[in-house]
Amino acid sequence: MSTDRETGGRGPRRADARTNRERILTVAEEVFGKGGRSASTEEVARLAGVGIATVFRHFPTKAVLLEAVLAQRFHRLRERAESLFDATDPGTAFFGFFRNLVTDAPGKIAIGEALLEAGGDDGGDAAQASAGLRRAVGVLLQQAQRAGAVRDDVELPEVYALLVATSQASARTHLGEEVRDRMLAVVFDGLAPLRAR
Amino acid sequence: MSTDRETGGRGPRRADARTNRERILTVAEEVFGKGGRSASTEEVARLAGVGIATVFRHFPTKAVLLEAVLAQRFHRLRERAESLFDATDPGTAFFGFFRNLVTDAPGKIAIGEALLEAGGDDGGDAAQASAGLRRAVGVLLQQAQRAGAVRDDVELPEVYALLVATSQASARTHLGEEVRDRMLAVVFDGLAPLRAR
Repeated sequence: MSTDRETGGRGPRRADARTNRERILTVAEEVFGKGGRSASTEEVARLAGVGIATVFRHFPTKAVLLEAVLAQRFHRLRERAESLFDATDPGTAFFGFFRNLVTDAPGKIAIGEALLEAGGDDGGDAAQASAGLRRAVGVLLQQAQRAGAVRDDVELPEVYALLVATSQASARTHLGEEVRDRMLAVVFDGLAPLRAR
Repeated sequence: MSTDRETGGRGPRRADARTNRERILTVAEEVFGKGGRSASTEEVARLAGVGIATVFRHFPTKAVLLEAVLAQRFHRLRERAESLFDATDPGTAFFGFFRNLVTDAPGKIAIGEALLEAGGDDGGDAAQASAGLRRAVGVLLQQAQRAGAVRDDVELPEVYALLVATSQASARTHLGEEVRDRMLAVVFDGLAPLRAR
């Protein structure tokens, strides 16, 4: 309903605005993902080819922009997890997603830190999108457990804590690929049912 | 030798200075451990009962003070690890130290972050003390492996990565004790030799 009213009579301009918004978000994810705390909104505007005023029209504060970037990222990860629901091999789906998230972590962490720095809202869009991701991981875990690929006696809270722990360590401590993989192998062995080891 | 020369003729004053230095360090560990980035040198001076000038005489910048606090903390952890060398039960010693470090992590992380914020030196005292801790953990690991309590095919880099990962997650994500213990149980199972599971 609100969309109808907003676009009424000036569709093209709204479409431009939407394109700008998306371009800013895409660039911001890149910039904040690399630079973390030190990245600036000015740089985002410059690389997106828009004025700083345009950035602030869409995202009134840096915190709002960071929140949108992080929410978008969590949302995409959730979609990736959901695309693995009912995979033919739920064990491979679960462990593959876990590994993937840890491998992708650095950018996400930098953005999350920048958000904290800018005073992000714990109950905001990013937190909601993060909760959606967590639920999707819970489904993958359950399906892997039913398939006998993950032991029955672990639950989502500790599995998610391990996901966060290994992601953060991988991002912050500049682990080499080999050490990261060996670290994950220990965790995956700990999650495997007895007979699989 | 240098102690003799320094205290010669003005022992009490030097002793006062040493007491001040120690008091500042103790208070700083408490203050920075709680507040992280937001903690101030002024607060340290106030709680230590000295003037801000005294703090700056011993520690010219906030980064120097943070570095000294972190180095002291790593040093103490190393001593704790070393006190477990040649324990009668090397498995209990290794896993107990691991758990202990994760449980104690919050304050250490906050200090480490504040140090990064203040521009700490990667090759400084804290980094050296941290390397000493890592070596001591390596000895505990080896002794636990020889005793058959930890699988033979894991090495220090991934074990240390897991120690850092679970410590950081425990500190940052405000894990409840139960979830933290269940997370550690998964990691410890992953580290256990096959027959022990």
